[in-house]
Amino acid sequence: MPQSEVSSVSRRLAELVAVTSWADVAAQQREAKRSILNFFATAVGSAHDPAVTIALQTLSPFSGTATSTIIGRTERLDAMSAAFVNAISANLLDFDDTHPETIIHPAAPVAAPALALAEARRLPGRDVLTAFILGVEVECRIGNAVSPQHYARGWHITSTCGIFGAAAACAKLLGLSADGIANAIGIAASQSAGNVENLPTAGKNVSVGNAARNGLFAALLAQQGYEAAPRAIEGPLGWARAMGDDPDLGRLLGGLGQAWEISKNTYKPYPAGIVFHAVIDACFALRSRIGRIDQIESVGVQGSALLLARGDRPVRNERDARVSIHHCVACGLLIGAAGVSEFARETVFRPDIAKLRDKVRAELDNSMADGAARVSIRLVSGETIAETVMSPRGSLADPLGDRDIEAKLRDGVRAGGSSWSDERIIEAVWQLDTCDDIQGLMQRASRSNNSALQT
Amino acid sequence: MPQSEVSSVSRRLAELVAVTSWADVAAQQREAKRSILNFFATAVGSAHDPAVTIALQTLSPFSGTATSTIIGRTERLDAMSAAFVNAISANLLDFDDTHPETIIHPAAPVAAPALALAEARRLPGRDVLTAFILGVEVECRIGNAVSPQHYARGWHITSTCGIFGAAAACAKLLGLSADGIANAIGIAASQSAGNVENLPTAGKNVSVGNAARNGLFAALLAQQGYEAAPRAIEGPLGWARAMGDDPDLGRLLGGLGQAWEISKNTYKPYPAGIVFHAVIDACFALRSRIGRIDQIESVGVQGSALLLARGDRPVRNERDARVSIHHCVACGLLIGAAGVSEFARETVFRPDIAKLRDKVRAELDNSMADGAARVSIRLVSGETIAETVMSPRGSLADPLGDRDIEAKLRDGVRAGGSSWSDERIIEAVWQLDTCDDIQGLMQRASRSNNSALQT
Repeated sequence: MPQSEVSSVSRRLAELVAVTSWADVAAQQREAKRSILNFFATAVGSAHDPAVTIALQTLSPFSGTATSTIIGRTERLDAMSAAFVNAISANLLDFDDTHPETIIHPAAPVAAPALALAEARRLPGRDVLTAFILGVEVECRIGNAVSPQHYARGWHITSTCGIFGAAAACAKLLGLSADGIANAIGIAASQSAGNVENLPTAGKNVSVGNAARNGLFAALLAQQGYEAAPRAIEGPLGWARAMGDDPDLGRLLGGLGQAWEISKNTYKPYPAGIVFHAVIDACFALRSRIGRIDQIESVGVQGSALLLARGDRPVRNERDARVSIHHCVACGLLIGAAGVSEFARETVFRPDIAKLRDKVRAELDNSMADGAARVSIRLVSGETIAETVMSPRGSLADPLGDRDIEAKLRDGVRAGGSSWSDERIIEAVWQLDTCDDIQGLMQRASRSNNSALQT
Repeated sequence: MPQSEVSSVSRRLAELVAVTSWADVAAQQREAKRSILNFFATAVGSAHDPAVTIALQTLSPFSGTATSTIIGRTERLDAMSAAFVNAISANLLDFDDTHPETIIHPAAPVAAPALALAEARRLPGRDVLTAFILGVEVECRIGNAVSPQHYARGWHITSTCGIFGAAAACAKLLGLSADGIANAIGIAASQSAGNVENLPTAGKNVSVGNAARNGLFAALLAQQGYEAAPRAIEGPLGWARAMGDDPDLGRLLGGLGQAWEISKNTYKPYPAGIVFHAVIDACFALRSRIGRIDQIESVGVQGSALLLARGDRPVRNERDARVSIHHCVACGLLIGAAGVSEFARETVFRPDIAKLRDKVRAELDNSMADGAARVSIRLVSGETIAETVMSPRGSLADPLGDRDIEAKLRDGVRAGGSSWSDERIIEAVWQLDTCDDIQGLMQRASRSNNSALQT
């Protein structure tokens, strides 16, 4: 549709955000809770990673009154700094949720500031869930409009689009008018940043953290009267074209308020790159059909060019392991698991795992869809057994069940080195819409206060 | 030169920053002081603008220990928040310095965090000046490498490149190694943001403030151990190419350590777009040759396509006035001045000014260089008088003298509504290299402490 026939993108999105109530998103409420439970699972799991600790220590002298929980830790910070740190921990291992069309991890940049702000203001759970659903909507629709060329050019889309979701969600929580929400989204356009070159480094953490923190900042500034250009996103010198993209406005705005992006959110069962999940599932299926592990002579993995491009690599450390076909096969066959500990340093350097990795060969099969994989094991007996997985666990075609996400939360609590009651967090998330003050949930997710709350 | 033959851009720049001492920049010291004096002039002049007040009020609840001065005001904030606010006030009217090759305003994003950090840590003036010179060097060299296409695509270059200068200057002040400085520059690449579409709005303030604040943040994170990709700037999925630019590495690194960008810094005598300065100078020259103002029948302004594109517009408010050929002519001829008050709301709506604006016509003359202008006045007598200015005051060919910048500081103090001693700020800046603790200067620039210091 020609631009002259529509009001600006910021304004159209803002109108949806302004008018949408809890009742209007009845069909999206369950998925929002699943997303937030998954968010807590990954945030608690990485809460004591050195990258999180450094962010926390760096920001501590620059925090105002400590109103907001650092998930899985004893420390607290002001809402902007807490949003920064919690977004980092939730996204750290890319084990958080995935919006398949854009490869955005939707929850980290949106839930982190929404929860931190709501905790500081003692807002009810329904408001948080409504704002979260709307934030994910804004984030993923803007991402849809510039995908896939945006990411391919080097923009880390979770950071660059996440800030729009953060701004929208926080503006909703602050009760801004449609004008105010549009300004928050427009101010976010002047703060959108983050490149793919830095993904293997802490530079990624900074852009994800900033998306959360600066989205909240945009909403606070808009509340105080800061304005933005009406076409900050789609204007001739605006966000999308500065980033080299001609936004697809039809895709951005089509079906707005009818079709919801959160319904397409997915959750990973394994903390590995999403293209490797079919490989892992195939190995799990094959495992029971092998006798002893030393019966394996060689393993062939057939997949698309994407699978090979992402995962046919030597493994020198745990970061490599999370994007290695070979390591995924080794864990899948030898351990029969692919959780956080299978991608931790201790497992990566196990001699038996390294030996099995060496038996794996990746092979191009152009007939395989992206995301699918076939694993063929040649046994010493000469027999070959094979398994093909088209839709891995956690994909839209085979989504994780509620119990699977609960299990992931429990794993996260264990990986985070905590002993507090994971069941209380799970219960609080499922009942989030009934709580009058989000502080209850956040205290359960804080390491220090948890034991006191068990009484 | 091929990329394989050079170490990374971040690393090369970081090595210069790490090894350069105060003595090494002897030839740049005077220009650094002039830049910083000009920075204070514009920062104090805008210190009480509503945009600055809003930023300050929004950040106050999110500030740690208030170690750093808000220039021209009584409030103090932590160093990151003070950097944000002071960069906004210094750049608010685009009356700050200009690096002509890139149109970067170099000082605001670099001086603001360097001063805020140095004040918090009680560092000596020489360290601040050295770090400032190096920060400007990094900022403008990266800007050179992507100009002019970077700005033309919609990137607000003062924001997007300013953050690199801020990171480098702060990393120098923190005493980081070359590795640490390279990481700070690389982390800045993941935070670089700001678009031109938002320039007529407060969105501009946010990206300029963030450049200052987040450059300091990058340095603090690098000090704590955060790393970045070696080729965060020039890599295939790095900053420059994500922003659509193929960086000119020869221009970025050529003559590094020999030719200094700060030597090309310029200072505006008028708070109007820089292309209008020749128009104003021509009007000043003509003013004495007109009898009474009502002798003017019409005014023709001849200039390049750039002049007309930027300034041939109706004037509805003070923002328009700063980029209006017509308003610049009216003030130049009627008032004989073009300071902050000539572009303030009261002057913009004066009936005599509006009447004279209506007599002005802009005319394309392709033979005129960008930045030059001819003003031709047709008098009621039938006589025509004309003046052509090729190099306006404040340009590299006719730079402002030290006394001119001092006068600008005094005007800024008046415009900021303050009564404190401008002479003490001027004196402190000229003697900055002899002061052991930058707090002395910052207290003079703070409204609250100034009168106490007069004793």
